[in-house]
Order: sequence, then structure tokens, then C-alpha cells
Amino acid sequence: MWASNLLNFLRLGIIVVFYPRGKGTLSDCMNKIVSLCKRRGFVFQSSEIYGGLKSAYDFGPVGVELKRNIANCWWERMVHSRDDVVGFDASIIMHPKVWEASGHVQGFCDPLVDCLNCKQRFRADKAPQQPVGKTVSYVQGGARERTKSQARREKGKRLQGTVAAAGYVCPYCGAPTLSAERRFNLMFQSNLGPIDPRAELLHAVKHDEALTLADVRARLQQLDHSSTVYLRPETAQALFVQFANVMQTTGQKIPFGIAQLGKSFRNEIVTEHFIFRACEFEQMELEYFISPDSWQEQLEYWKTERLNWYLALANNAASFRLRQHSRAELAHYAQDCYDIEFLFPWGWDELEGIASRGDYDLRSHQQATGAKLSYFDPHKVDAESGKQGVRYTPYVIEPSAGLTRGVLALLLDAYREDKGVDHQGREKLRLFLQLHPCLAPYKAAVLPLVKNDAQQVELAQRITRELKKRQLHICYDDNQSIGKRYARHDEIGTPFCITIDAQSLADETVTWRDRDTTSQQRLPCTALADKIAAALVLSV
Amino acid sequence: MWASNLLNFLRLGIIVVFYPRGKGTLSDCMNKIVSLCKRRGFVFQSSEIYGGLKSAYDFGPVGVELKRNIANCWWERMVHSRDDVVGFDASIIMHPKVWEASGHVQGFCDPLVDCLNCKQRFRADKAPQQPVGKTVSYVQGGARERTKSQARREKGKRLQGTVAAAGYVCPYCGAPTLSAERRFNLMFQSNLGPIDPRAELLHAVKHDEALTLADVRARLQQLDHSSTVYLRPETAQALFVQFANVMQTTGQKIPFGIAQLGKSFRNEIVTEHFIFRACEFEQMELEYFISPDSWQEQLEYWKTERLNWYLALANNAASFRLRQHSRAELAHYAQDCYDIEFLFPWGWDELEGIASRGDYDLRSHQQATGAKLSYFDPHKVDAESGKQGVRYTPYVIEPSAGLTRGVLALLLDAYREDKGVDHQGREKLRLFLQLHPCLAPYKAAVLPLVKNDAQQVELAQRITRELKKRQLHICYDDNQSIGKRYARHDEIGTPFCITIDAQSLADETVTWRDRDTTSQQRLPCTALADKIAAALVLSV
Repeated sequence: MWASNLLNFLRLGIIVVFYPRGKGTLSDCMNKIVSLCKRRGFVFQSSEIYGGLKSAYDFGPVGVELKRNIANCWWERMVHSRDDVVGFDASIIMHPKVWEASGHVQGFCDPLVDCLNCKQRFRADKAPQQPVGKTVSYVQGGARERTKSQARREKGKRLQGTVAAAGYVCPYCGAPTLSAERRFNLMFQSNLGPIDPRAELLHAVKHDEALTLADVRARLQQLDHSSTVYLRPETAQALFVQFANVMQTTGQKIPFGIAQLGKSFRNEIVTEHFIFRACEFEQMELEYFISPDSWQEQLEYWKTERLNWYLALANNAASFRLRQHSRAELAHYAQDCYDIEFLFPWGWDELEGIASRGDYDLRSHQQATGAKLSYFDPHKVDAESGKQGVRYTPYVIEPSAGLTRGVLALLLDAYREDKGVDHQGREKLRLFLQLHPCLAPYKAAVLPLVKNDAQQVELAQRITRELKKRQLHICYDDNQSIGKRYARHDEIGTPFCITIDAQSLADETVTWRDRDTTSQQRLPCTALADKIAAALVLSV
Repeated sequence: MWASNLLNFLRLGIIVVFYPRGKGTLSDCMNKIVSLCKRRGFVFQSSEIYGGLKSAYDFGPVGVELKRNIANCWWERMVHSRDDVVGFDASIIMHPKVWEASGHVQGFCDPLVDCLNCKQRFRADKAPQQPVGKTVSYVQGGARERTKSQARREKGKRLQGTVAAAGYVCPYCGAPTLSAERRFNLMFQSNLGPIDPRAELLHAVKHDEALTLADVRARLQQLDHSSTVYLRPETAQALFVQFANVMQTTGQKIPFGIAQLGKSFRNEIVTEHFIFRACEFEQMELEYFISPDSWQEQLEYWKTERLNWYLALANNAASFRLRQHSRAELAHYAQDCYDIEFLFPWGWDELEGIASRGDYDLRSHQQATGAKLSYFDPHKVDAESGKQGVRYTPYVIEPSAGLTRGVLALLLDAYREDKGVDHQGREKLRLFLQLHPCLAPYKAAVLPLVKNDAQQVELAQRITRELKKRQLHICYDDNQSIGKRYARHDEIGTPFCITIDAQSLADETVTWRDRDTTSQQRLPCTALADKIAAALVLSV
């Protein structure tokens, strides 16, 4: 396991500071990651020069490589390495009736509350609980756009109020003066086809002077909603809807799975923690279809399989755990569910859910469409009749992972501050990302020591070309001093730096520098490709 | 070049029927591809069991692999193989002002016309031209949902009419009785955040009895549009908007490029030709930033580079061409533009546009935001003042490819019907996809000849595991007779079938079957991985 490399650091006497978990430094740690992401090109705020967009992020040059590497590792493990799972890639906009049958149109809602004191909006189910009837004090009014802690500390006229029947107060100002709860659907809505009936009606109200309010109300009653579409809030549903097509074209037999990787969209009332909870995000989902009597062993299998995958990619096994859902958390149709959680700076939070969903989804779409979403097992014997050959609606185990938050977790897991000393004996902080080489944006950097030495540059470029021919993503870098180049590649997690100097021209050897230990050794050019390739192997 | 393999077939005396291009068989050919896509799991209609969704498609188990392979080839060629291009992955929902500055809110519109006779809707700019004032005849009324040719042949009362000033008739029924043209924006609109002001207003109209029409109109005037967002209609804009961030974090110097791969959305009035023109599609775009005085040589370079990429992947070089845009086609800011076109069954049509867009995009976003989207070249000498060091807004060359239509083109290019004879001398049609091995969903299939022979199965599974360890996507397949398995793998383009039989158990050799020639040879197990790996190399 990659985590065992930690032992090497300790042996080498290097002080490795894991990202701080102490209470005072939580936001500090997130700030460091956010700052690194922006400074080195992992993640930028979307449309930054336009002032940014609420909770939308862009993956920069190294961020996109890291994200692709995680996604490709998942695809390799979940699809290519297995004989019983096939991939899929559905459209983001699906038939709207899919979301009626799945229950999302009716039920995919959050309770929204407006604070009448500070005018902030929040989710009722995440608000601080208080005893009903308790008298609480809060500051009158207050500006918008403050953090929770800022608003509470603010000076101003203090008022008192009583906690109402809902049993919570505003998370921003503590006031109990709140609007009623409203249920808001999290699905982004749009309109398929050039004519949007709602827009047409509003256009008519604006421009048609002959129109009466009765006309408007009548047209509103008859409004054609058939062109309303939704951006999928999860990738899973397409895999149920296309279950029969996939089974038929691949000849797969139960148990088998369908895996999908792609974007989903949720119009979150509150987005938070950088890329952790954003309105647009990527998922990696598997629907594994099984015989109903095997759900317990299959859930057990997938719990272990998925946790091990994270542990293989990460350094700190202690930052990952499985948490079983309580009865209250479970959906009514689910038999059982586990979350794989990561210890984020704000506490344990979900990376992936692994649920036993029974036959709820296939059955829902079967009922809505009349399509046959069942499976005939010619070998199974019916327990009651004793007859061989049984048709049933498969159960499903769903390991559903968030790729976008996976990027954040693996960045946090990799973040290191190494208190070393420079060559003059001064204390110096070295910052590096201890990413598994298979995740690192660049597998190695090739650096001519002296940029103006044409022969060094030529050799460095030749080595770069040779390594690239082996399908390795290599960075040729001659920008700034060698120290700055090492620091840059430490910060983006490049596991190896290959430096070409005067001696290289004489004997075709190079300096090989290890990111994690900063140790250097002399290696012949011919050894580089195999050495890099060997480090990329992931052992789950 | 892969196309040279064609010569081998001819030498081997196999009759290869390229997909028919004769007039009568055009739709026939598309039907064959659509049917193959559905039968073998390349492409399904989205939400098929719900009756499907207009022009939305899902990529099935082999389709997603083919699409990923094309995308990865592009990324490898455009990003990883180069030192001067970096990748990017922006959010689909960007700040709405991006689309104002880019001109899309104002100008990304198609002219929409309704036929008053047959009630079909069409794009004015694609309608059949007729001389103004000409008398034309058409059939009264007519059902909806017919193809263009069906509607024209329909029997019914014939009417006559005069072609109006617009100079075109309905493409479905030929009638000149048309609505006025209306401009419809192709961008999908949605609302960010839980409160949609338009929905709130309509809700009030429906439920607030005290509301007057004057109130409604007043609220409509003051409607807050700040939460209106768009699904990006192209991936390009994010690369301009984030130009400075990318340049700063990577230290790239002009000329350099930013590449992006991802979904875009266009609310097309008319979708057509299967996955060729769909509302949701994937793009592969590069913005290559250059010095203004180099645009001609850079455009020349990218024309050749991009065309060669397609030729390396394809069989029939004659199906690809470069077409220069006429002056009338060019955007006002563009210096020049070429399309890479493919000979689709309906004629030459666009796969990729390669445009010299000048500094229009960077300048637009610069003006809209005040951000500095320029470049300082310390070595360049100012022509007028003779001073060294010049700041300028870079020009850009944009090779913009459609991944989704690229899948269709490469499927058409690969489609083969081979009129051979079976072992009893009867004529038999063999259908296969002559995909370059690097594009094939599976690189090889491993087939135990006798499924019930435990030793054959065990050896086949061991060989599968060994090959998978080499990161090769291999299909272990023991479903149905060996003939059916060969046929299946021919149809999904698996380049090699590896059959394990009784002899294999004795001497660890296997039968190696070539998809294109059907020739078979005996090979030792140890030779398989290298032989497959060698076939995957793409030489551009």
C-alpha cells in the first residue's frame, strides 16, 4: 500500500506535518488547499474575471489531469479489470417522465427558509436546533453575505425572541423570526425545443395589450409542460432505464453491473466547502444487478472493494472510514446503506454511498412504462413450486462516488508541509503533494540545469520525447531556477524530477530527484522509463 | 497509415464493399449503422422505454469505449504529446455575462418559421429557395411527424400559392404559406439558485387573487434576471475567460494552447442524422494563442495537423477533405477558416472547423471585465519605435472538433460488408467494423472453444487476466457458438479473437483470428500481449 511510504520518511528523519486537524486551524487548512489550487492551476473559480459564479469551479491544467487520473483509475478498476461490468454514457437531459417515475420531481426537495431578521436563506434541516419556546437573543438586522461566525459576533441593537414550533433558529444571526418552510426542488429545469411556453406567456403579458388577467390565468392553466426538461441530478437513473438494452446487447448474466461517469447538477440552496458541495459536479456510479437473495453478501463485497480502492490511492488509511446508515437515514425501499467517509477539515463527510436499493428502481420504471425490466434465470429453482427457471426483478447494489469531492479528499490527503532546512542551514518550509504517482498530473519533470546550454536543452528535449513515446505524461520545464522548478513540481505532486547537467552530456546519466524524500541519485537515461512506469502501478 | 491495410485485403482477394454512396442507398446506409448501433450496444436512444427524447442519445457499453478512445487519442495528441498545450475542464454553467460579451445572448439565434399548411417548424436559412412570385402547388393540410419526402408524395387536395418575399417554401410540404421568421436563441436557459423569479411570478398569477394585470406587468418589468444561466453552447469561451489564470500558473509563453473536452448544448430547431446534430453533444476544442503576425503559418500548420489526425484514425482518406470558408461564411472578425469535412451518406458535412479568430474573443472579454488578457513579449521589437518588449492581445487559432459526430464518421468509415463464402460454399455476408485497433472497444476477445470444458475456461480466463494486467481492454466471452462469437466481435470491431481449444491445453498455443481478413494462425500465449500492443500504435 502506498501509505507504507510514510515509514520511509520517518526513517529518513524528515518531519512531515500532516494537514492540521486542530480546531483552530480547520479553515486555515482549507485556505491553504484553495490557495494552492488557484496558485498552481488545479482549480479556479468559474468565470473569475466576471466576479465568479456561485459554487462553480473550473479544473485548470494540473487539476484536469488529476481528475482524469482518478476517473481513469475508477474506470480501469470498475470496468476494464472486470468481466462482469460494462460502461455506459447517457445524455444529461433525459425524458422528463424518468424523473417522475424515480420520485425526483415529487420528492427531490430541500426545505428552504428565509430569515426575516438578517435576510439570509438557509436549509431548515441543517439549521441549529433549539428548544421550542426558549427565549433567544440576536442582533437586529445585519448585512448580507457574512459567514455564520461573523454575523453572530456583530455589534448592534440586541433583540429577544422565542423559538417557534419548528425548533430551530437562523444559522447566520440566531434569530427565531423565520419565514415558513418552502420545499424547493433541487433539479435544474430547462426547456427542450425553441419555444418555451412560460416565456411565450410572459412575452404575451408584456406585449399583448388586449390580454386580460383572466386570459393569462386561463393560458396558465393550460400551459403545455411537455417540453420541460431537467438536468439529471444523478447519473444512476439512466442505468436502470437502459437495463434491458444493456443486458440484451452484451449477453451479461446476473450478477453484472453497469458503470457510468459523468456530470450531475443540483440547485443547492447552500453550497459549501469549495468543490465539496457545488451545483455542478461529477459522479462515478455503478449499478450492480443481483439476485434478491444475495444482497447481504454483495453489499459486504462492495463495501470492502470500494474502501480498498480509496486506501490504495491515499496515504492516510485513518482518514477513511465506513459508516452504516441509521434506520432513520435509510430510504424506505433500501435494505441497508454505508457511506465511505473522509475526515475533511470540517469533520467526517461523505465520499461515496454504497446502498442496497432492492428492486425499487427497476420496478418503478417498469410500472411507469410497462417495459420488461426483469431477468430470467434458467438455472435457479423456484423455492415454492420446485420448478427450474425463475423470472425476477433484480436487486441492485449501488456504489455511488463523487468524483469532484474525491479530488478534494485526495488533495487534502496528499498535502504535506515538510519543515526542513536549506543548504545554508536556515529553516524552510517545503510544501509538496504526496500524490500516488498514478494520480500525479505529470509523471516526471525533465529539467535542463542550464537553460542557455543548447546541448543540455537538446538532451532534455530528447529524453522528454522518448518518455512521452511510452505514453507517460511528462513536463519539459526550463522556466526559472532549478530550485524554483523543484518547488513548483513538489507543489503539483510531480513524483520525480530528472535534471540534465554538464555530466549528462558526457555520460548520458541524469539526476533523479524524489519528491517525497528530496533524495537525489544518478541514473542512466536508459533506466528512466521503466523506473517511472514501475511507480505508477496501483495495487488495490 | 492505417488505410494502407486496404491493400492487404485486395491482395487477399476478399471483396470489400465500402458503405454505399449511390443515391438510392443513402438512407439505407444510415439505417444499417443506426441498426448496428442499437443491436450491438454502441448507441441507444435516450430514455427509450419512455418513448425516447428528441435527439438525445446514450452511448452503450461498446459505444462509450469507442467514444472514450477517440477522446483519449485526441487528448494524447493535443495535450500529452506536446509541450505547448495544456488541458482544461470548465463548468458547463458559467457566469451569464460571459455569453453577453461573447455575443451569444444577442446573436446565437436561428430563424424559425412555422408552416401554416402542414404545421411543421423549420429553419428559414435551411429551407428550399424558390423565386419570389413563382406559383407553386402543394397538398392541403397534412399530418405532422412525416419525413420531407413522405409529405411531398402524400395524396390530398392540391392547392396553389405564390412564393413570398422571403424566397423559400416549407421543406416538408412545399407550401409558401408561412409564418413570419422569428429569431430563437439556441442556448438552453435555466435558473441558478432555488428561487426562479419567472416561476415565482407565474405562481403569484395563479394563486394571488388580489393581483391585477397592472401588478403583473409592473413585476415583469422589474423581474430580476440575474439568476438566469445558460448551458454552454460551446466549450471555447471558458478558455478565453481563463486565459490569464492559465498563463500565469503554467508559465507558458506564446505560442501556446489550452485544450478542452466536454459537453455542449444547443436547443436546435431541427435535429438530424442520428447523432450528427443533437441538442447535447461533445466537443474537443483547442484555443492556440499566437502572435498576430503568425496567423497564416499557424493556420496552415493546424489544418495539416488536424487533417492528418483523422487520416491516421480512418481507412478511407478520400472521405475526408478540407474546405475553405467563403468570405460570406466568415464571421466579421475571422481572418480565415477551414472545415474538415467527411463524406457522410447525405454528402460532405463538417467534422471540425479550424478558424483564425484574431483577437476578437480575448478583446471582448477584456472590454467586458477590464481584466488584462494580453501578453508581454520581452524579446519582440516594436516595429515603429524600435523598442524591445511589446505587449499585445494574442490572436487565436481554434481547431474545434465535434466528438459525437466524430464517432459517427469513424463508424461509417469502418463499416464493411464482406461478400464471402461459408465453409459449405454458400454466399454469406460478413459485416465488420474495420476500426483502428486503438479505437476498438475491445482490443481482443478471448474465447474458450468449448464452454463446458473447465480446463479451457480456466486457461482462457488466465490469459484474459494476464492481458488485462497490461492495461488492455479484453473481452472474455463464452456466450454462444464460436461462429456467433466471431460474428459479434466482427460487428463491434474487436481486431483479434483468441481461441483456446484442446491443443491449447497441451502446448499453450492459441488460434489468433484477424478481424479484417478472417485469417487464422497458431500463436504461443506468450506472444499475445506484445502483438496486441503493437497493433495499437497510432502513427500520425
